Amino acid sequence: MTVGFRTALTELLGIEHPILLAPMGMVAGGELAAAVTRAGGLGLIGVGYSGEEWIDRQFDAAGNTRVGIGFITWHLAQSPRRLEAALARKPSVVMLSFGDPAPFVPAIRAAGAKLILQVQSIGEATEAARLGADAVVVQGVEAGGHGADPGASASRSLMPLIPAAADAIAPVPVVAAGGIADGRGLAAALTLGAAGILVGTRFFAATESLGHPNAKARLVAQGGDATVRTRIFDIVRKVDWPERYTGRALVNEFARRWHGHDAELCDRLGDEQPRYAAAAAAGDISTMVVFAGEGVDLIRSVEPARAIVERMVTEARTILDRLSGRR
Amino acid sequence: MTVGFRTALTELLGIEHPILLAPMGMVAGGELAAAVTRAGGLGLIGVGYSGEEWIDRQFDAAGNTRVGIGFITWHLAQSPRRLEAALARKPSVVMLSFGDPAPFVPAIRAAGAKLILQVQSIGEATEAARLGADAVVVQGVEAGGHGADPGASASRSLMPLIPAAADAIAPVPVVAAGGIADGRGLAAALTLGAAGILVGTRFFAATESLGHPNAKARLVAQGGDATVRTRIFDIVRKVDWPERYTGRALVNEFARRWHGHDAELCDRLGDEQPRYAAAAAAGDISTMVVFAGEGVDLIRSVEPARAIVERMVTEARTILDRLSGRR
Repeated sequence: MTVGFRTALTELLGIEHPILLAPMGMVAGGELAAAVTRAGGLGLIGVGYSGEEWIDRQFDAAGNTRVGIGFITWHLAQSPRRLEAALARKPSVVMLSFGDPAPFVPAIRAAGAKLILQVQSIGEATEAARLGADAVVVQGVEAGGHGADPGASASRSLMPLIPAAADAIAPVPVVAAGGIADGRGLAAALTLGAAGILVGTRFFAATESLGHPNAKARLVAQGGDATVRTRIFDIVRKVDWPERYTGRALVNEFARRWHGHDAELCDRLGDEQPRYAAAAAAGDISTMVVFAGEGVDLIRSVEPARAIVERMVTEARTILDRLSGRR
Repeated sequence: MTVGFRTALTELLGIEHPILLAPMGMVAGGELAAAVTRAGGLGLIGVGYSGEEWIDRQFDAAGNTRVGIGFITWHLAQSPRRLEAALARKPSVVMLSFGDPAPFVPAIRAAGAKLILQVQSIGEATEAARLGADAVVVQGVEAGGHGADPGASASRSLMPLIPAAADAIAPVPVVAAGGIADGRGLAAALTLGAAGILVGTRFFAATESLGHPNAKARLVAQGGDATVRTRIFDIVRKVDWPERYTGRALVNEFARRWHGHDAELCDRLGDEQPRYAAAAAAGDISTMVVFAGEGVDLIRSVEPARAIVERMVTEARTILDRLSGRR
């Protein structure tokens, strides 16, 4: 029996393991969220660009299992009624990422949900703590999906970001996000001063995720040298992300053709947009985006969320015991 | 008395602590290298763009203390006789970074020095192991000074890079470089599977480094949100780095003016180059480059290398003992 890690995050959320499911839009559905919670972590449904009906369906899929939910803040601001729909389902946590969270804080507080804010720099972490976040997720540029573009000012990698954030906002718990996919990453995050981790890509490749089977297979096959932070998949999907955020995805044929040619892609959207949509509908991963972090090297099979969580904790425990000279 | 960490790197080099001084060009001189070795790690003289005479002077400064030396590979190729000069001084280690190391391997081997190669991706790590490196330094984009530009293909952050490299090239020891400045970073690197760490910026701010006192003071004052990876300091110093490498430096007035305006700076070099040279000679850090990694948040004072090494080890040991439930 592996002894869990008791941290400020496990205390805050009343969970056994300091592992949160990243609310990957349209990938982290209710089934995956519930599976992570049942494994001892906490699952967060990822709204992405979905509407109220989708949100309701995912809470239904989670059943009676306690889950949280995460929004893309700037997108939520465009149709904020989705927050009410979510809060009506009593999520244990609401996580906001990418944009100004302040307008949404009172409603989340009033509903009794814990507030988790995701940030990409020390400046933003300090601001999140000031807003009263119960925990702050610091996300490094190695993370899959959207995050600070490395060209943007104050974009940070995770390993030096964690201790700096822990120093800056103590005693607010810091949760580490970006490229963590196994027990080595969990152990490292804890030694760096994080109270827990937020894991995306590794759970994308979980049995229960809503990701396309072809995408999951590619996550197993492809390595971390072959990801790219790019705007092209937002351009072709006509999603209007703020300038400072780009998305990290597996390099595929579409990325090889268009990355670095944003303006040309904009000019050809008339052809490329329908072509992309058809490919995505068909699960054609040579064209379709597969968001993935640099931790993808460490993903070797598609398996249930429980197996992923349990191996992470056991491995982290083993490593820490060995390094402390205890074995 | 803190018990050190015995790893494949400490075994390989016969040292007490798995901590190497990064061979920062013209900053890591013989005095600093010797101080790191005497503290139980291993110091590497950083040649940068210097010549044979400078190299000799630094070995003289190191005295009888065992040190290694590091070269910028593409620059060494332009005047390779510097390698002979260095090997004549019997360095314990030669480290090569940025470029094709293959032409230099036979001479290093013949001299009986250990060969350490620094890389920025899994593909390069595999190639370095194939070349017979005794240890491979994996450098993340958070590192100070030169490294893979985040816009380049296969640029990586350190936290997911370490375990992937350890898996890819075992049993060759992996050394972690980039943003590590305290015992939390050392502990994390070890949990991730590194056999040791290579530390630059934190030792830049050591008493014994050749860095300008104004630069050291700025490293203490400025935070990690305020670094930038840029080419402008190479342009203005007329150093012809290969396209895929940029340098991470503290944001100063010169960076605020020129970063993102490379072509304009090239056009104005007639004015800007002498202005820059004068500022650098005067220690004017509003203009002069101060290379620094994202770990700069964690630097709070200028102190002797011994104090830095000892606190790193003690802190790492304390953290690992606490997390293993041993306290």
